[in-house]
Amino acid sequence: MTPVTYASRAARFRPSGVRSVFDIAMRPGMISLAGGSPDLAALPRDRVAELSAGLIRDRGVDALQYQPAQGLDGTIEAIREVMRAEGVEADAERIQVTAGSQLALQAIATLLIDPGDTVLAEAPTYVGALAVFGGLEAAVAQVPIDDDGIVPAALEETIARVRASGSRIPFLYTVPTFGNPSGATLSEPRRDAVVEICRREGIVIVEDNPYGLLAFDDVPRTTLYARDPENVVYLGSFSKIFSPGLRVGWLVAPPELRARAQLVIEAAIIHASVPGQLLAERFVVETDWREHVRRSTEVYRGRRDALMAALERHMPDGTSWTRPEGGFFTVVTLPPGAPTAPLLDAAIAARVVYVPGSEFMADGSRADTMRLAYSFEPEDRLAEGVRRLGDAVRSLAQRG
Amino acid sequence: MTPVTYASRAARFRPSGVRSVFDIAMRPGMISLAGGSPDLAALPRDRVAELSAGLIRDRGVDALQYQPAQGLDGTIEAIREVMRAEGVEADAERIQVTAGSQLALQAIATLLIDPGDTVLAEAPTYVGALAVFGGLEAAVAQVPIDDDGIVPAALEETIARVRASGSRIPFLYTVPTFGNPSGATLSEPRRDAVVEICRREGIVIVEDNPYGLLAFDDVPRTTLYARDPENVVYLGSFSKIFSPGLRVGWLVAPPELRARAQLVIEAAIIHASVPGQLLAERFVVETDWREHVRRSTEVYRGRRDALMAALERHMPDGTSWTRPEGGFFTVVTLPPGAPTAPLLDAAIAARVVYVPGSEFMADGSRADTMRLAYSFEPEDRLAEGVRRLGDAVRSLAQRG
Repeated sequence: MTPVTYASRAARFRPSGVRSVFDIAMRPGMISLAGGSPDLAALPRDRVAELSAGLIRDRGVDALQYQPAQGLDGTIEAIREVMRAEGVEADAERIQVTAGSQLALQAIATLLIDPGDTVLAEAPTYVGALAVFGGLEAAVAQVPIDDDGIVPAALEETIARVRASGSRIPFLYTVPTFGNPSGATLSEPRRDAVVEICRREGIVIVEDNPYGLLAFDDVPRTTLYARDPENVVYLGSFSKIFSPGLRVGWLVAPPELRARAQLVIEAAIIHASVPGQLLAERFVVETDWREHVRRSTEVYRGRRDALMAALERHMPDGTSWTRPEGGFFTVVTLPPGAPTAPLLDAAIAARVVYVPGSEFMADGSRADTMRLAYSFEPEDRLAEGVRRLGDAVRSLAQRG
Repeated sequence: MTPVTYASRAARFRPSGVRSVFDIAMRPGMISLAGGSPDLAALPRDRVAELSAGLIRDRGVDALQYQPAQGLDGTIEAIREVMRAEGVEADAERIQVTAGSQLALQAIATLLIDPGDTVLAEAPTYVGALAVFGGLEAAVAQVPIDDDGIVPAALEETIARVRASGSRIPFLYTVPTFGNPSGATLSEPRRDAVVEICRREGIVIVEDNPYGLLAFDDVPRTTLYARDPENVVYLGSFSKIFSPGLRVGWLVAPPELRARAQLVIEAAIIHASVPGQLLAERFVVETDWREHVRRSTEVYRGRRDALMAALERHMPDGTSWTRPEGGFFTVVTLPPGAPTAPLLDAAIAARVVYVPGSEFMADGSRADTMRLAYSFEPEDRLAEGVRRLGDAVRSLAQRG
């Protein structure tokens, strides 16, 4: 080829560790604690097949034609119902349908980030968000968290430090509920504090909430959006409550920002897949979707328990991990001095795969941590996977 | 809301005239010569509904789960078959599935355009491409065309002029076959010349070819990609040969560029809709898709003829238009001195809508032109639409 001259931002798009281990996870005999795939076994396959046929039979060519870029009216209504389950009453003019919440984040980031800006995010944060911010040539300042999520004093310190450096802060990106990868959840008092700090400092909050309905307890949690709908952009998704393959998500934002996000989305994809939007709508309208979510959540809770028990049993003394009250993930931290560099290789050799914690840090730190997903594998395989992982850690320690 | 500070690029995302008239086109009694929607009436609805149910019944939860970001193997094979119909044998490692060819263009442009670069394109060019280039803060230099497409000498002059200005040229974007909006097709000798000029000048060609299979004649046309697969990126789509609502398209590129485009696509949407990909695959594998395309093309040819006859009959003396040999569009140029400014309003008042030619020019020029689409309305409504349009032009001229 004629040597291609890439744009300067091109170097910022690097292969993600999550997607790389996706291929490894497909190998025969491999146990995957890596990808954040939901368990879809509980979905009524024939019923979904019938919904899928019905949407073309009933809607005809409308299901296959170009449609309005904001999203289909019925899909927006279905999203409003999901938002009600999250405790939010959202007007249709605030809702933009997207190709997964990934594109919702991409659109908002495209509108708000100039090169050289510094996005705030949790330490650690969602690897797909780091990909978006990197592609827009932003820096990322990651705010320390504990079991109760972002530490407000640390947030204030980080804001002051970034501003002292001369960099602009376009927004705080956060997964406050059942965080990815941490599994941590922002406590109610800290929700008040984080919302208040950001409002005071004039920093928009982008609240990414794909796991909010997958709670293992009955503790009520109020979205950040509900606390300050004029300063919080909410990102939602059907990926974890129904199907990630559809690639249907949404954002909720003040009307002007929503309308601008639509323009970015039109330039990227024109609009979200119509069969995907219709199938998501029918899932909400024509099935007992809350019952499906409730049953899935029961499955995830059992798996969380199985993973925790296996970690207790198989990991070396001094290993620690978060105990999530919902969602898909925990982060495991190895004891001080444990060997980390070839651990993923050793684990893969032992036929278990996970995502290294360094993937969730913009600076590649935290090599002593691992994200383990309990969403996809059944309980016995989770236990076996952690046994293999424990063996890999111990065998490396002996060699070291 | 806290006053949002938008990024500098945000101002470059402006409402598209094509999408604005989309809403107007929905009004009762309106005849739309505006949108580039394919005619889907010929699609066998029950058969497509059955394919849609079957893909979930047969593939089960795989049809609803996360899948590899390059695209499903079966979809890539189906795309290889469509490319063979275009005369191109493409290896799988060169094919990237995208959410419509819009995202293919967005991904390539993201990798190749730095702010301040100048993209080359036809005058006039696809409005959705202008949206992509604008969002990346590029300038656009539009190269004069005639009935045989890009004028090679004008291309060379434009390259020299842009370079003399100090701006870098990342690529030439072109719809060489049944162009949007022009309807013009690059002649075979000019294909050789354009490919040769760009190779010599080290300028990548991005060949957007959604209409290539919709030819009204039997003239063989070779893609630019087939002439120089190392310097041409090919953009393809199921939107015009099957269904735009699926949002499934692709790019064909040298393997390294393909792999980098995948990273941009992962950051934007993770991957294209799985039900959409599977339905496109089944359309190719399980139906006589070439026969569907042949029959649709017959319909479009009849509509082209009806539109041309109506233009001949109803438009004022001195009006000119292109005569496309395939695709969806013609560009109509009003006689010198004809009033243009409120013409769209007058047309809408007469219940016919089109896209002003200025939408297809980065500088908003060519207010004396209109893009008319004959793809969507049946022949009698095309004739009536042009009659209304002719009346609107004449009534404005009398008032002026």
